[in-house]
Amino acid sequence: MWSTRIHLASPGASGVKTGTMPTVPLALSQSSYAVHVENGLLDRAGELMAEAGVSGRVAVVTDTNVGPLYAERLLTSLTTAGFEAILLTIPAGEASKSLSRTEELCDELARLGIDRKGTLVALGGGVTGDLTGFTAAIHYRGIPFVQIPTTIVAQVDSSVGGKTGVNIPSGKNLVGAFHHPRLVIADPATLLTLPPRVLIEGMAEVVKHAAIRDADMLPLLEELAPAFRNGLSAEMLALLPELIARNVAIKARIVEEDEKETLGLRALLNFGHTIGHGIEAAVPYGQILHGEAVSLGIRAALFLSLKRAGLPQREADRLLKLMDDMGLPLVLPDGVDTALALKKAGADKKFEAGAIRFVLINRPGHSFVSRDISADDMEEALLELTRPL
Amino acid sequence: MWSTRIHLASPGASGVKTGTMPTVPLALSQSSYAVHVENGLLDRAGELMAEAGVSGRVAVVTDTNVGPLYAERLLTSLTTAGFEAILLTIPAGEASKSLSRTEELCDELARLGIDRKGTLVALGGGVTGDLTGFTAAIHYRGIPFVQIPTTIVAQVDSSVGGKTGVNIPSGKNLVGAFHHPRLVIADPATLLTLPPRVLIEGMAEVVKHAAIRDADMLPLLEELAPAFRNGLSAEMLALLPELIARNVAIKARIVEEDEKETLGLRALLNFGHTIGHGIEAAVPYGQILHGEAVSLGIRAALFLSLKRAGLPQREADRLLKLMDDMGLPLVLPDGVDTALALKKAGADKKFEAGAIRFVLINRPGHSFVSRDISADDMEEALLELTRPL
Repeated sequence: MWSTRIHLASPGASGVKTGTMPTVPLALSQSSYAVHVENGLLDRAGELMAEAGVSGRVAVVTDTNVGPLYAERLLTSLTTAGFEAILLTIPAGEASKSLSRTEELCDELARLGIDRKGTLVALGGGVTGDLTGFTAAIHYRGIPFVQIPTTIVAQVDSSVGGKTGVNIPSGKNLVGAFHHPRLVIADPATLLTLPPRVLIEGMAEVVKHAAIRDADMLPLLEELAPAFRNGLSAEMLALLPELIARNVAIKARIVEEDEKETLGLRALLNFGHTIGHGIEAAVPYGQILHGEAVSLGIRAALFLSLKRAGLPQREADRLLKLMDDMGLPLVLPDGVDTALALKKAGADKKFEAGAIRFVLINRPGHSFVSRDISADDMEEALLELTRPL
Repeated sequence: MWSTRIHLASPGASGVKTGTMPTVPLALSQSSYAVHVENGLLDRAGELMAEAGVSGRVAVVTDTNVGPLYAERLLTSLTTAGFEAILLTIPAGEASKSLSRTEELCDELARLGIDRKGTLVALGGGVTGDLTGFTAAIHYRGIPFVQIPTTIVAQVDSSVGGKTGVNIPSGKNLVGAFHHPRLVIADPATLLTLPPRVLIEGMAEVVKHAAIRDADMLPLLEELAPAFRNGLSAEMLALLPELIARNVAIKARIVEEDEKETLGLRALLNFGHTIGHGIEAAVPYGQILHGEAVSLGIRAALFLSLKRAGLPQREADRLLKLMDDMGLPLVLPDGVDTALALKKAGADKKFEAGAIRFVLINRPGHSFVSRDISADDMEEALLELTRPL
């Protein structure tokens, strides 16, 4: 069994250590928690939760896609570890990230006697994690929750960092809370059942991490990239725990340093997301997946990094080739209204008091927040996306 | 001008000091804030907010009762202090404490450009304060807010302590967040426009504070009590800032010591509330006001304190006479289903893992959480409320 432990407390200790399960600890101002990464971990969830001190009744929240695949194994693990657990299933899809769904969940939990002594478990992708985390943040003014992410985006990004939230008519994630999970349990083997397109889109966040913080990850990604287009092989699956733990560590370090996004450091995680969000919001939901929009957004950010941050052309080309090899989209599909995308990007949360905070890189692994990007620059970058590579 | 400053940091410093505005500071783990109490303070709200470091755009949330009376003065004060302020008005009444109303507010705020740099101001009673505070807690994952309470309950109780929340079908306040205001501005002169019944109900929380923590307040209350039945005179109004600041200090001290209700200390504030909530929930909303239900709940708690905590009969009688003199109800109105009230009290949050946590006093000012109260005891106490004094 491939294994590692990553200690975020000691700088530079993100290397591989053998003999233990890959675990990324997060040390926060008020709490700390571990992110465990290992193939097959789903069946040990109950045990890990008990070790982490979780007690009381447990409600598992999952969706109509993930529930049929993995809920029974999770419930068995919980029951075996002595937990009394119930299962709540929400409709799969972004529409479940709403305040009305939150209210339904809270009301059902209250009716079932899951009160402030209870614990929620999110089993699924980003929608399930964000909704369940937010529900845990406000149910009885806050109860513990555990993340069991089952997509790449959720495993390397959304399950870590404490951001929870739902959408309102004005926009995505405009309502939410900072509420850290008690524990994150990432089982890369759950990625085996992902549709190829969803598997691939998750890699956009991985490329983002390499681009903003960890250029040393690029050779590994370049080696894996072509295989991603063919689905997940057993050989690749064996490599995933290390890759995912490494990405969790990148995000965890940034979150530790800037827990509530007050220092600007956490803004680096928005690389590729300003224009990406604009594109995502300019089309009917689901037409372009989040990771696909981020991939397009990264191409736009690389274009602006070439123009404004002295990024060498060969480095931009290297990252673009990597994403292309993975099967990530880099050219805007026909029918996307670029003017609307620009407007949606402009209405995005990355704008602050009139000045655009835009993340650029001057070389892979070295990112910064720029205030030099104008609306015209963004328009030019969006137009660039309509051109072939 | 009568004035005092209360320093919670130094024990016993809750006495009167002349020359400054009565201000109660709260020192919390992550923050601290002041509660200012003075007649006429509404017109200085903008100035006080600027002094407290509030900046950016401000949205005032008020209701259809309070808005017509005080919104214009507040907006003038804010504008004079240099704030750009907008006004949002919600329907008066408990029905506004809902997640759907929260969503409407968040969406309206987002549309108006009140983002994470904005600040909310709650102008009104408990409903407005709870809803606005919760909205501030989740809008853009948390923005600052200011409380300007305009009822006695809100001034001495709900505006202080950081508990915010809304109702769901399963029960009241089951969804919420701990989110402390940046500042509380209590202007007792706003109480002049309260309907007599609402003025009087607020005194139940004041009597509660005397009963659990501050028996020395009783002589002052006994002096004021009969006058309350006749509405608020100018003479009484002059005495209110001291009385309100003293009550704020009692609550503030308990909140400082047990910010998130984890130590049991904060539970003392539930004196009279277990059975009170049961009664309130057993009748159509508004038939018995919160403070009226608390008054009945205090009588029940005194009955159980006599029975289980050695409270001397003369002390119970003294408190009952005080409440009676104020015009607070002490006998259950006809038509209240006591079995339902008992059930509702049993479904209350004061129960924990099957054991009832019931607050008793062994003498005025000395309270504790008992686990000796049975469902039979509570039933007996409820029956006692059907008997005349």
